[in-house]
Amino acid sequence: MSLPKVLIIGCGFGGLFAARALRGAPVDVTVVDRTNHHLFQPLLYQVATAGLAAPAIAEPIRRILGGQSNTSVLYGEAQRVDVAARTVILEDGEALTYDHLILATGATDSYFGHDAWRAHAPGLKTLHDAFEIRRRVLLAFEHAERERDPTRRAAWLTFVVIGGGATGVELAGTLAEIARHTLKGEYRRYDPRNARVVLVEAIDRVLPPYPPELSERARLQLERLGVTVWLGKRVSGIDAQGVQLGGERLEAKTVVWCAGIAATPIGATIRVPLGHGGRVIVAPDLSVPGHPEIQVIGDLALLPGHQPPIPGVAPAAKQMGRHAARNVLAALRGRPTRAFRYRDYGQLATIGRSAAVAMVGRIRFWGWLAWVTWLTAHIFFLIGFRNRLVVLIDWAWAYWTFERSARIVTRAAGDDARGQTPVDKS
Amino acid sequence: MSLPKVLIIGCGFGGLFAARALRGAPVDVTVVDRTNHHLFQPLLYQVATAGLAAPAIAEPIRRILGGQSNTSVLYGEAQRVDVAARTVILEDGEALTYDHLILATGATDSYFGHDAWRAHAPGLKTLHDAFEIRRRVLLAFEHAERERDPTRRAAWLTFVVIGGGATGVELAGTLAEIARHTLKGEYRRYDPRNARVVLVEAIDRVLPPYPPELSERARLQLERLGVTVWLGKRVSGIDAQGVQLGGERLEAKTVVWCAGIAATPIGATIRVPLGHGGRVIVAPDLSVPGHPEIQVIGDLALLPGHQPPIPGVAPAAKQMGRHAARNVLAALRGRPTRAFRYRDYGQLATIGRSAAVAMVGRIRFWGWLAWVTWLTAHIFFLIGFRNRLVVLIDWAWAYWTFERSARIVTRAAGDDARGQTPVDKS
Repeated sequence: MSLPKVLIIGCGFGGLFAARALRGAPVDVTVVDRTNHHLFQPLLYQVATAGLAAPAIAEPIRRILGGQSNTSVLYGEAQRVDVAARTVILEDGEALTYDHLILATGATDSYFGHDAWRAHAPGLKTLHDAFEIRRRVLLAFEHAERERDPTRRAAWLTFVVIGGGATGVELAGTLAEIARHTLKGEYRRYDPRNARVVLVEAIDRVLPPYPPELSERARLQLERLGVTVWLGKRVSGIDAQGVQLGGERLEAKTVVWCAGIAATPIGATIRVPLGHGGRVIVAPDLSVPGHPEIQVIGDLALLPGHQPPIPGVAPAAKQMGRHAARNVLAALRGRPTRAFRYRDYGQLATIGRSAAVAMVGRIRFWGWLAWVTWLTAHIFFLIGFRNRLVVLIDWAWAYWTFERSARIVTRAAGDDARGQTPVDKS
Repeated sequence: MSLPKVLIIGCGFGGLFAARALRGAPVDVTVVDRTNHHLFQPLLYQVATAGLAAPAIAEPIRRILGGQSNTSVLYGEAQRVDVAARTVILEDGEALTYDHLILATGATDSYFGHDAWRAHAPGLKTLHDAFEIRRRVLLAFEHAERERDPTRRAAWLTFVVIGGGATGVELAGTLAEIARHTLKGEYRRYDPRNARVVLVEAIDRVLPPYPPELSERARLQLERLGVTVWLGKRVSGIDAQGVQLGGERLEAKTVVWCAGIAATPIGATIRVPLGHGGRVIVAPDLSVPGHPEIQVIGDLALLPGHQPPIPGVAPAAKQMGRHAARNVLAALRGRPTRAFRYRDYGQLATIGRSAAVAMVGRIRFWGWLAWVTWLTAHIFFLIGFRNRLVVLIDWAWAYWTFERSARIVTRAAGDDARGQTPVDKS
């Protein structure tokens, strides 16, 4: 008699915590991901801004789940769900059958129908994205050193971040720090402190999920770090030379897109009605209405009744992952499934050196204290995931442990000796 | 009155040590490199085998030379030397003038005229190469987990290293360790310990620059680590499915090329006679005969009178770099230049865990003691270059130092979701 098959698609925070919650359970678990690693996404902006090496925030899924004997890990890209056949089809046509499916493929960047902008303004979702942004940022300063025309040099030294959410804010703050501090004194033909970092947001404040008071605190801290914050400006065009904002033009060689996300397309293949951003509308127990054998979690899910709305953050995905796993086990035991309720332990957004905003219950704070809180929380969670403060010491000790600290496959970008993008050889 | 211009092309060990030796001298130094980093090449195989993150062995050239006020760093690729005009032409046509030129662009892989082999068997010279090898090795184990046909799975689990020099030996030894130890217990459909690592060498022993006794010691240690060593076998073909060795066929999805190097092509643009492997034949003082204003160092140079021949190792490049810089300064002061003499402090080759061979003066040793000597020497030199054991602690301390530990631009490869190489979708 074979065990019930639980198939988990995606191994971000949601998928990983679902898999872990099934440890030791009488089920046959298969986890499919299109990369070989679980990514600690809250620190991805640090890789994009050269503060951390990729292996410090990425861990092979096999290593995390290797000791879990009821679980297999497959490297593959799920293309669609065949609800009638209860299978998921991978990119090479292989069909994986399931008794229970947990869909946790998350979100991707949305350019609101302007897909041509992507080539000029990459988003930040994967390690590959982070490498691409890091490459563009670092090379912009190099090109500026070779460029003798002041107007063109200024375009190399203008960095535009589009979108004032958490990722846009932390990227803009860190880019300003790189220009003002990290690179100081390393160039002969210009002063990197004259580089300009512009954060563009369409509505009238940054960090919209936060109360207006904290948005204003965030804006003030960004300006103090050297970021120019443009509020209420909507992007109407992006090309290799810069950004168009209605009648206004910003000449900039480096543009990063943090303005919109959409659900990954596999959600649509379940063929149920989708909600805002292409998310799958789920029942209170996270199952798909009419399909109790399918649960959708994390950024791919939309739980309509929940007030306040569940934010797209790691703790929410983790809680949903654990909850979905428990509901699978309940269903297998013939017990009723339970409704999901998000527990909000607080919200933190970092802005840069000594700059952050925080909200814990009714308490709101900002500046150095919020930043230290953010740092402590993230080091704590990173260590909980695996002790990464000692990644390098790992290597010195590799002799004893047989561990290796950089087993990371990335999807690499096409590169070009000189151009900022393939279409831009100037 | 402007200072004499010293132009250094390439910032490996030779170029870097030349630049450093000109610190404070009354010259105007420009260093050109086609990457933004100096690479600690002796540990590159550790990046290729996922033991180290790239930033641990790569340091921005600007950061190393930033405090040297007479020195500019330019990111660019030198295409050719115009000896008559005393300029070096970069990839975009920019011409850099010089009074003294130090050419230090090193070597590249040679496929002995079989350039089609490159796509199936990458070499290991740059970080990009290391990422490509790491990607292929890690994905081979993943493909093996998805492959159900035993013959095709065996091809995914066969790793061929071509060339029994130092790089080939350390790669083969480390690959065997990954299969036997690192990945143990992480796969459900096969045992990674059954993976096969084959080291192929055309002559009758590995590590040919070493005495035969140490070559035999190296071979025995390789076999003990689990490597199959094939001596006296010449490769006659490489394709996406494996390697042809005369009448023999080895089905293998992952092949690495460590069998041949050739000088970088810029040497030929000086239009003087070239020696073995396309190297520039230099006078005893490292200058190009007939061109006292040009010096060639490192793997690009061939010094015919020197006995024994200068090995292509970091200490030789460093010594030549320093020597070339001193000769430039001597010439500027109207003093005679001096002949270069390589000082051999010993040779070390690592093979794997507790396995190495060493030669210090007349003393030869191997095994654990040689391996500890190798480890100590490399940690020492890596620390001397910059303290890399604390790269991660760097980050925790980044607040105080304003340093960032991953400012590395690599030349990324085109990638593909499933194929081992673009021509191989199987």
